[in-house]
Amino acid sequence: MDGELDFRLTQSSYVLLGPVFVHNPHLEEMKDDILYHFGLGTGTHNLPAMFGDVKFVCVGGSPWRMKAFTEYIAAELSMEDPKSEYPNICAGTDRYAMYKVGPVLSVSHGMGIPSIAIMLHELIKLLHHAHCTDVTIVRIGTSGGIGLQPGTIVVTKQSMDATFLPKFEQVILGKTVVRNTDLDPSLAEELLQCSKELNQFETVIGNTMCTLDFYEGQARLDGAFCSYTEKDKQDYLKQASEAGVRNIEMESSVFAAMCRLSGLRAAVVCVTLLDRLNGDQLNNSPEVLHSYQQRPQILVGYYIKKQLKKKSRS
Amino acid sequence: MDGELDFRLTQSSYVLLGPVFVHNPHLEEMKDDILYHFGLGTGTHNLPAMFGDVKFVCVGGSPWRMKAFTEYIAAELSMEDPKSEYPNICAGTDRYAMYKVGPVLSVSHGMGIPSIAIMLHELIKLLHHAHCTDVTIVRIGTSGGIGLQPGTIVVTKQSMDATFLPKFEQVILGKTVVRNTDLDPSLAEELLQCSKELNQFETVIGNTMCTLDFYEGQARLDGAFCSYTEKDKQDYLKQASEAGVRNIEMESSVFAAMCRLSGLRAAVVCVTLLDRLNGDQLNNSPEVLHSYQQRPQILVGYYIKKQLKKKSRS
Repeated sequence: MDGELDFRLTQSSYVLLGPVFVHNPHLEEMKDDILYHFGLGTGTHNLPAMFGDVKFVCVGGSPWRMKAFTEYIAAELSMEDPKSEYPNICAGTDRYAMYKVGPVLSVSHGMGIPSIAIMLHELIKLLHHAHCTDVTIVRIGTSGGIGLQPGTIVVTKQSMDATFLPKFEQVILGKTVVRNTDLDPSLAEELLQCSKELNQFETVIGNTMCTLDFYEGQARLDGAFCSYTEKDKQDYLKQASEAGVRNIEMESSVFAAMCRLSGLRAAVVCVTLLDRLNGDQLNNSPEVLHSYQQRPQILVGYYIKKQLKKKSRS
Repeated sequence: MDGELDFRLTQSSYVLLGPVFVHNPHLEEMKDDILYHFGLGTGTHNLPAMFGDVKFVCVGGSPWRMKAFTEYIAAELSMEDPKSEYPNICAGTDRYAMYKVGPVLSVSHGMGIPSIAIMLHELIKLLHHAHCTDVTIVRIGTSGGIGLQPGTIVVTKQSMDATFLPKFEQVILGKTVVRNTDLDPSLAEELLQCSKELNQFETVIGNTMCTLDFYEGQARLDGAFCSYTEKDKQDYLKQASEAGVRNIEMESSVFAAMCRLSGLRAAVVCVTLLDRLNGDQLNNSPEVLHSYQQRPQILVGYYIKKQLKKKSRS
């Protein structure tokens, strides 16, 4: 084990903008690097030419939503393709979908920590191989809220585990390594300010609980298995609320941990589809759920547009 | 907490064929049950009419592969659609894909324990609502082998965690519950016998390690982060091998645990795409990798055909 590397991997101060770091001395020794789950590689693709100008990466669970975000951001930035063609860069695989418009990359990550972790390993290597610098990354997702009006956006301060501790446990060679899950506080504040300027929906900054399961792991009463009562559920969600948890989802902890280690300025922006204190099932109409899901896209689209305007003025 | 339910949820004897169990008293009180990630529900779909005849469920990570399996099994069972149309039953969502041919249901589950767990909760409720009986379920997947020729199929005996213990830890209300991960031994033997009859590729019965991460979690040297040496990796994989681990993947533990609890006769049939003792990257040609991925489909297709022939004779 390399002591210096361990220190860098567990440091707690937030990284400044700059290059995208990998922490792996073995990568230098490899002739080619195959990003298997993207269907891309250093031997088969010119990654600096394809991705060198990327400054913003938006990730979300659903491939459809990430394509819709690409179409939305293209229109917002007046960079529409006249033929409305936004090809999936990962068309050779069905594991993830990836789209690019100007400096904005949009990537799907599936559901859960393992699925987003595979994507992030390969994304971080991609940005590193492409020599990208000053990259901001935002997860735009959906979640269950605690005590919030459905449709509210939560920008995550810290991602917490199912015992309300702000940490991510990574198992390496069978041993558990604890990693920090703080998100960038200044980016969260900037996003909150954008929401105020937009004035279309409520946005709050709060803690997000990240679980390994959607049903038993989130105290739902409607899974195939449930061995607890409605009161047990309410007590658990109340404890979460007291720990500052405003919403629950399934990817933020490893996202926060890996982005910190790589020097990516990172935010988690999730809309709440329901208030878990009042129920478990998503029984709003598809139209209402769809309109809620557009809110993180609108907020992050506004933020990106504002940043690019600022940059073009300077 | 319900003592009897707890006992049923943690019992270790293998279930016999019969109905598909849910263990959740709250479900009876619900007017409708929305299977959100399938885009199906008891209030919107006639689940007994759609799924009541299902006897075999095959699940795998990739939606493309599960569609290909449906086309393959349709031809094997001489149940081809003359127009070659196999509609995705979950077309209203992009979370999972689902296809059906006669008594065979084919469902994708994405990558990792959380993703397959959401699918299994909703699948078990679907089979329960549809009053299905005597259901056999097989995960057909890909994996990294340990000390096996690439292309070998491993039929899982027990699924082990990253410390080589045969258990799955489910977090419920912030507390860890340990669940059994044995797969059905007689089904594994039947699948091994089918492989002998087919005589097209090597198949072994062995333990499968199930991890939460593809890179650091499986001791790979080619992730964005790696703080250990080639020797550390080899030592870890050697320990795994000594514990009977023949391959590594990311879904088998929760699959084994949940299927046991529901009375589903279950097997995990994964092909090894590489020998992890010799490398980490998947650098075989797409044609070779594709032919390996077909092997679990061929084996399970043969098994299903044989079972249906046996049934039609009796």
